[in-house]
Amino acid sequence: MPLSIDINGDAGESYGRWTLGDDASFLPHVSSVNIACGFHGGDPATMRETVRIAKRAGIAIGAHPSFPDLMGFGRRMMTIAPDEMVDYTLYQLGALTAIARTEGLHVAHVKPHGAFYKACSIDMALSKALGAAIAAYDPQMFLVLLAGPGADAAEAAGARVAREAFIDLDYDADGGLIIERVAKLRDPGTVAQRALRIIHEGKLSKIDGSDMDLKVSTLCLHGDRANSAEVARVVKETLQANGIAVSPLR
Amino acid sequence: MPLSIDINGDAGESYGRWTLGDDASFLPHVSSVNIACGFHGGDPATMRETVRIAKRAGIAIGAHPSFPDLMGFGRRMMTIAPDEMVDYTLYQLGALTAIARTEGLHVAHVKPHGAFYKACSIDMALSKALGAAIAAYDPQMFLVLLAGPGADAAEAAGARVAREAFIDLDYDADGGLIIERVAKLRDPGTVAQRALRIIHEGKLSKIDGSDMDLKVSTLCLHGDRANSAEVARVVKETLQANGIAVSPLR
Amino acid sequence: MPLSIDINGDAGESYGRWTLGDDASFLPHVSSVNIACGFHGGDPATMRETVRIAKRAGIAIGAHPSFPDLMGFGRRMMTIAPDEMVDYTLYQLGALTAIARTEGLHVAHVKPHGAFYKACSIDMALSKALGAAIAAYDPQMFLVLLAGPGADAAEAAGARVAREAFIDLDYDADGGLIIERVAKLRDPGTVAQRALRIIHEGKLSKIDGSDMDLKVSTLCLHGDRANSAEVARVVKETLQANGIAVSPLR
Amino acid sequence: MPLSIDINGDAGESYGRWTLGDDASFLPHVSSVNIACGFHGGDPATMRETVRIAKRAGIAIGAHPSFPDLMGFGRRMMTIAPDEMVDYTLYQLGALTAIARTEGLHVAHVKPHGAFYKACSIDMALSKALGAAIAAYDPQMFLVLLAGPGADAAEAAGARVAREAFIDLDYDADGGLIIERVAKLRDPGTVAQRALRIIHEGKLSKIDGSDMDLKVSTLCLHGDRANSAEVARVVKETLQANGIAVSPLR
Repeated sequence: MPLSIDINGDAGESYGRWTLGDDASFLPHVSSVNIACGFHGGDPATMRETVRIAKRAGIAIGAHPSFPDLMGFGRRMMTIAPDEMVDYTLYQLGALTAIARTEGLHVAHVKPHGAFYKACSIDMALSKALGAAIAAYDPQMFLVLLAGPGADAAEAAGARVAREAFIDLDYDADGGLIIERVAKLRDPGTVAQRALRIIHEGKLSKIDGSDMDLKVSTLCLHGDRANSAEVARVVKETLQANGIAVSPLR
Repeated sequence: MPLSIDINGDAGESYGRWTLGDDASFLPHVSSVNIACGFHGGDPATMRETVRIAKRAGIAIGAHPSFPDLMGFGRRMMTIAPDEMVDYTLYQLGALTAIARTEGLHVAHVKPHGAFYKACSIDMALSKALGAAIAAYDPQMFLVLLAGPGADAAEAAGARVAREAFIDLDYDADGGLIIERVAKLRDPGTVAQRALRIIHEGKLSKIDGSDMDLKVSTLCLHGDRANSAEVARVVKETLQANGIAVSPLR
Repeated sequence: MPLSIDINGDAGESYGRWTLGDDASFLPHVSSVNIACGFHGGDPATMRETVRIAKRAGIAIGAHPSFPDLMGFGRRMMTIAPDEMVDYTLYQLGALTAIARTEGLHVAHVKPHGAFYKACSIDMALSKALGAAIAAYDPQMFLVLLAGPGADAAEAAGARVAREAFIDLDYDADGGLIIERVAKLRDPGTVAQRALRIIHEGKLSKIDGSDMDLKVSTLCLHGDRANSAEVARVVKETLQANGIAVSPLR
Repeated sequence: MPLSIDINGDAGESYGRWTLGDDASFLPHVSSVNIACGFHGGDPATMRETVRIAKRAGIAIGAHPSFPDLMGFGRRMMTIAPDEMVDYTLYQLGALTAIARTEGLHVAHVKPHGAFYKACSIDMALSKALGAAIAAYDPQMFLVLLAGPGADAAEAAGARVAREAFIDLDYDADGGLIIERVAKLRDPGTVAQRALRIIHEGKLSKIDGSDMDLKVSTLCLHGDRANSAEVARVVKETLQANGIAVSPLR
């Protein structure tokens, strides 16, 4: 059986007059896209445009819900009750679903954004509530979360969880993800090697140089950097050259 | 064949800490509810609560999309390109759909709110674009619009249009709806008589005393007034006492 | 020298179509008002109306800046960099200042709202940055903070700090303030006795029954409860009957 | 007496994660900057950064208030009551004033943004209310408006009006300004010649080729285009080479 992995990328994070990233160049090199749904970026017209780009690229689409924090791009922690955050998530997921439907596309996954994503990895009440809600909404929907206790809690609550690793962000000594306010540029080759090592060895090097074990079904790349398209292209080509197919979650 | 009509009411217009209307008292007396979807009122948690109240009342639910204007409650005209406003509408419709789905409810109709509603009655490019979009989204979805040229344009564009009349707002001499910033109290009996006359005679009295002809399948009542529940109860009882069933659009 | 204390009340927390509290009844019974400035409540038109009510009541006005969280009424903790939160605070303070200026009123104090207020009592980097900023803005401006280490840090950074106690909220066993999502009704007499004890004994009873010592120059009352005006009236009359003047900070 | 004119540029229109324009390159070539104040762009941290850039450039600063429309960048017409729009304006003006104060800068002018600016040129009730409010706020404050009846109305209401012309936007046959959603690139030399002609002849060529007369004290340039800095530099150098000083309103 051939090796295969999903690469998911954040996109659609422009907002009204403001553009961010170059989605048309970036998306053809990933297999799934996480589309901003208005709470941290992604006004409805941008959402439609992003769905169209994804459709042309032939990739799977997912919702990328956020804390309600436009000014902070969803990267600031907020203490929101799990029930309310579940409602915010369904709101954003549904919004994307309706727009995608008129383009003939189905939403395949949900992946929390920024600080919400991080919160799901440290607040089990939140990841549990989210897992139960996504399961109730659609048992076939993938919920993409950081490999770890949050993903376990969401899965135990009934959701179809896809564990992920980040290949263009650093992990701190405790294995926590280091969210950058403005993402640093990364060397494409280094990122590609990181991906290969995760797939082949199930290991990732933390910022203190030590290794962590992880088993994942999807790898994340960001679309808001100057060289995002180049990084994605090199990663995909490197994986393919090593006999690993890049294809959506299934 | 027995006479039947839908009565639709706006509800779910609270927002976070702020409450508006008494939906639990009001909704049992209507047959369809237009639920605010976040752009003029109705944060996601309020949307869920409103869906639950509607479910207990056994009534049909619909989305009540608005211009993006929280500060103005969606009652101020905005010049938004039809394509963008279509995307804003689908965004709000989808948001409600996802929340309702986890409560086991289906969204049966869309009815623009406030100034957006008025815009649909005077800007044919907007009502046409909206009609085409709702038809593309779901040909079974009702699009509730003011009886008149906007409704005709949306219908010609393919939508399943339900024409409506307002029994608790006034019409100006030209047949235009007079949107009130804060709605005036209305006498329940007067409102009920207005409903009866529309159903029996197909006529409604404008603010200058003259009549206008109209043929409608739904009547609107507002839920944000002190006596909204009382008005709705009296209207429903009056119609029933006159042999007219109050039931959702179909 | 006669005893005197300031009583400050939160008000102006309506927003557009939504009203909250009965400021016209409540404000005549306090000596200072904290006016919401748009980030948790208080759109610009509401701000002007609140300034006018304060002017008629002859009381001092202050800005009540919040985390940017309309949906959560500023009651949810957010992790915002101190420098940015300082800018958000000056933004809101300046907004009120300009509106008040056209009504002939001067802004006398700043008091953080909700979770921002709480954050100032536990995050010394934040209270220090805020203290330095208010001192740089206007050394005569009062900065109202919970009596404790946050107030000390802001004062050390140069601000003219007014320490306060809450007489209509509870304190947990650690002396932390318990922020309620929707405030409970309080018995006016009990609140008034609490005020008297703070002034006469410098003591306040925590929720576990134990006492804490505190020395304050202002007492806080909320304006968003059904009996807020009654509570404020009874407190003011009780203090006056005990020879304590209720007058603004100075 | 030497000829002198103000050149004002819009800047500070980034928002949180999103950047727009290259203010540090653009601002040194103008004499006044209109700073976005949060309603269409310009979060508080961006406002501070823009004030600092202006301070380094040694230019005058002004507030650039907008309709509340982040998603539409303030470029969509909204029907807002004059009194409310006055409050929105003072809110934004005050917000900038407080931030500027902590940087040691004084706000010298107010210039409405986008659709609000256009509304002031066609709705005399609005320009009159705005003029009266700015006069009440500070009789020395300049109010920058399009030369025409709106400017006349604001001046008659008491404001110190500075009339302006646009040298990087087109005028329609009726002399109305054509607001572009995303501004077109302009040839620097053409823009500079347009400026010279306005100053020397008091004439400007409309899109239909015919001339309009106008007498202005400030010329506007936009800062959100790829070549904004280059255009501004060429205009300033051309004016200076023709003996015309570029200096703030006075």
